[in-house]
Amino acid sequence: SINGDRLWESLMEMAKIGATPKGGVCRLALTDLDKQGRNLFVDWCRAAGCTISVDKMGNIFARRPGRNNDLPPVITGSHLDSQPTGGRFDGVYGVLAGLEVVRSLNDLGYETEHPVEVAVWTNEEGSRFAPAMVASGVFAGVFDLDYGLSRADTEGKTMGQELARIGYAGEAPVGGRPVHAYFEAHIEQGPILEAEGKTIGVVTDAQGQRWYELTITGVESHAGPTPMTRRKDALLGAARIVDLVNKVGLANAPRACATVGMMQVYPNSRNVIPGRVFMTIDFRHPEDAVLAGMDQAMREGVARICGEIGLDVQIEQIFYYKPVHFDDDCIEAVRKGVAEHGFAARDMVSGAGHDACYLARVAPTAMIFIPCIDGISHNEIEDATPEWVAAGGQVLLRAILEKAGQ
Amino acid sequence: SINGDRLWESLMEMAKIGATPKGGVCRLALTDLDKQGRNLFVDWCRAAGCTISVDKMGNIFARRPGRNNDLPPVITGSHLDSQPTGGRFDGVYGVLAGLEVVRSLNDLGYETEHPVEVAVWTNEEGSRFAPAMVASGVFAGVFDLDYGLSRADTEGKTMGQELARIGYAGEAPVGGRPVHAYFEAHIEQGPILEAEGKTIGVVTDAQGQRWYELTITGVESHAGPTPMTRRKDALLGAARIVDLVNKVGLANAPRACATVGMMQVYPNSRNVIPGRVFMTIDFRHPEDAVLAGMDQAMREGVARICGEIGLDVQIEQIFYYKPVHFDDDCIEAVRKGVAEHGFAARDMVSGAGHDACYLARVAPTAMIFIPCIDGISHNEIEDATPEWVAAGGQVLLRAILEKAGQ
Ligand SMILES: NC(=O)NCCC(=O)O
Ligand SMILES: NC(=O)NCCC(=O)O
Repeated sequence: SINGDRLWESLMEMAKIGATPKGGVCRLALTDLDKQGRNLFVDWCRAAGCTISVDKMGNIFARRPGRNNDLPPVITGSHLDSQPTGGRFDGVYGVLAGLEVVRSLNDLGYETEHPVEVAVWTNEEGSRFAPAMVASGVFAGVFDLDYGLSRADTEGKTMGQELARIGYAGEAPVGGRPVHAYFEAHIEQGPILEAEGKTIGVVTDAQGQRWYELTITGVESHAGPTPMTRRKDALLGAARIVDLVNKVGLANAPRACATVGMMQVYPNSRNVIPGRVFMTIDFRHPEDAVLAGMDQAMREGVARICGEIGLDVQIEQIFYYKPVHFDDDCIEAVRKGVAEHGFAARDMVSGAGHDACYLARVAPTAMIFIPCIDGISHNEIEDATPEWVAAGGQVLLRAILEKAGQ
Repeated sequence: SINGDRLWESLMEMAKIGATPKGGVCRLALTDLDKQGRNLFVDWCRAAGCTISVDKMGNIFARRPGRNNDLPPVITGSHLDSQPTGGRFDGVYGVLAGLEVVRSLNDLGYETEHPVEVAVWTNEEGSRFAPAMVASGVFAGVFDLDYGLSRADTEGKTMGQELARIGYAGEAPVGGRPVHAYFEAHIEQGPILEAEGKTIGVVTDAQGQRWYELTITGVESHAGPTPMTRRKDALLGAARIVDLVNKVGLANAPRACATVGMMQVYPNSRNVIPGRVFMTIDFRHPEDAVLAGMDQAMREGVARICGEIGLDVQIEQIFYYKPVHFDDDCIEAVRKGVAEHGFAARDMVSGAGHDACYLARVAPTAMIFIPCIDGISHNEIEDATPEWVAAGGQVLLRAILEKAGQ
């Protein structure tokens, strides 16, 4: 059994790094604050007797040896980076729940057959650097290393540069080694578990995602003397595309999600008809065929809208992965942990992407969800109860023991 | 007669300060580049024998004495600041046409009865600091000095601070002195003159304007696990408001203009449903009653849109002036200049706001427009021909002589 109080205290300690006025966290990937968070994690892991390795994507692995260190490790973990207005649990919970498992195994003097590693994956959020989960993607062979290191933020700084700057450009090769199993604990980030009074979500699947970047080009011109009918207003086009995206989401509800999260207007001056807009689209659905239909509806709608106004448009799909089904054996290991403690649980499909979605390509994988208050995440007010936090840790411990060999 | 070549050369020389790759100018108000432009203007005016005074809003007045210096001056001028992606003529043309009138009077050894002053008004564009024409507004008693000096850019820097920083926080009181007449030459910034093959626009009126700032607040949340029907997406509301603003403009076309030029999305992250949007609206019409109707239609539409999505909204009208009718006597002076040279001309209503709109409250005022290519302004490709530029200068000289006393 894990120590729920210690896990909670560690979460609250880590939440001080990048704490925001509204009780959240801003710890964007590869900033000085991310470095501070990583250093604290590394210190804690060393104190718990782990050896640390960092790979070329800055992924950190804290290893607790097993009885047979020639066997591939059971890995658990998640990410320490946050959204600009993120919460205290998203990602960091999975990392510190993994650390708590290690600490508990130490307390119990328990040796596993396989080594156990706690992983911190770089830039999971995809907020500072798009796309999401890029470093676990390199680990899983989905992206190559050059692609990963060359992802740039809006100022043009690359992940490679920023990893070097904060001292986390490691030496270890990225991936390419056997992983016996991967487990990731996470908050649900949606409303279902709390609404149904369940403590644990047994995550069997994750929905597919497609992310796009659109650049819409019109003619910038003076807001005063330019007649309405002579305008090529890029923001008018972008606005209609926001509405279109929403309609595409609703047409495929309740399971589809469709979001425009980012928009940049040029020159963004009050009395200038905007000449250019950069915007993003995020589509999700548990069925790949529906996702393809949403893609088509979006492309047709965008072409129509831009044609009507006389705008040029470039659409680039920058991120795509099909719905993921996790490993039945690992799911079974999670179920056993739930049963042992008698937690109220249900099967779920993850609405968010997680490093587990890429790990699933190279290792038997499953995830454990706990509820979050009002289903709110990617928001400073994101919250969870100490009971939920502890429950997820208990299930994680059992699942890891199941695969790591008792 | 003025020297059109010299005027053109001065324009091209000034256009080097803040020159952009696409042939335009970025010389935002009270930046280092604005300072350079001001310094060059002051040097040129001193070389032309003018005395310089700078008032507390940073407005510059270059004075050529008259025969009777107790008489109030005839002032001409415009602004040196530009949009972020502005052109080589907007504003600077009126300033340098005024300087060319002074230089030509010197060449001719011509003494006027009234002194003649060339004015540079601070922050006409309203791009870095909103609203537009704020310093000529203080001069005309529309705004008080504290209001003017406390206007802040998006980083919170005030006009007062930035005037001091660039060395243009002058000593002279702002306005409160008699002005015998005010003339402003400007590019049309719209398509009418060029389309009709006219060289000069005799500006009899300027349309009224209302500017608004809207802050729309929803709930930021995760783009993946948050069902479409549970969202309070601030950007969806903002997008529908952009479409509404366009509809309000079209409903009052051909004379109305309605523009959303600026939009800032928070937290502006690809996989976060936006929780807050800041946006601006710019409404214009030559009739105040129509402008009031547009205001009402906008407010009703915004309330409906935000109500439907469950968003909070704050609307602040930050700028409002009624349509302006210029002084019939000054208009007559412009007509005489046109007639003398036989330029093809027509009467016009200005679609843009100009410092002349505020000067008209404290002095007999009129404006002279020249065409611009394709009617495009507030764009780096803004352009005009040397012939148009010279023609406007000729008319300005005649109008000034008419009022300053030959
Ligand atoms: N868990 C999480 O917030 N992941 C970020 C990637 C996504 O948007 O799904
Ligand atoms: N002339 C000009 O561009 N003025 C800026 C104020 C306005 O937008 O009308």
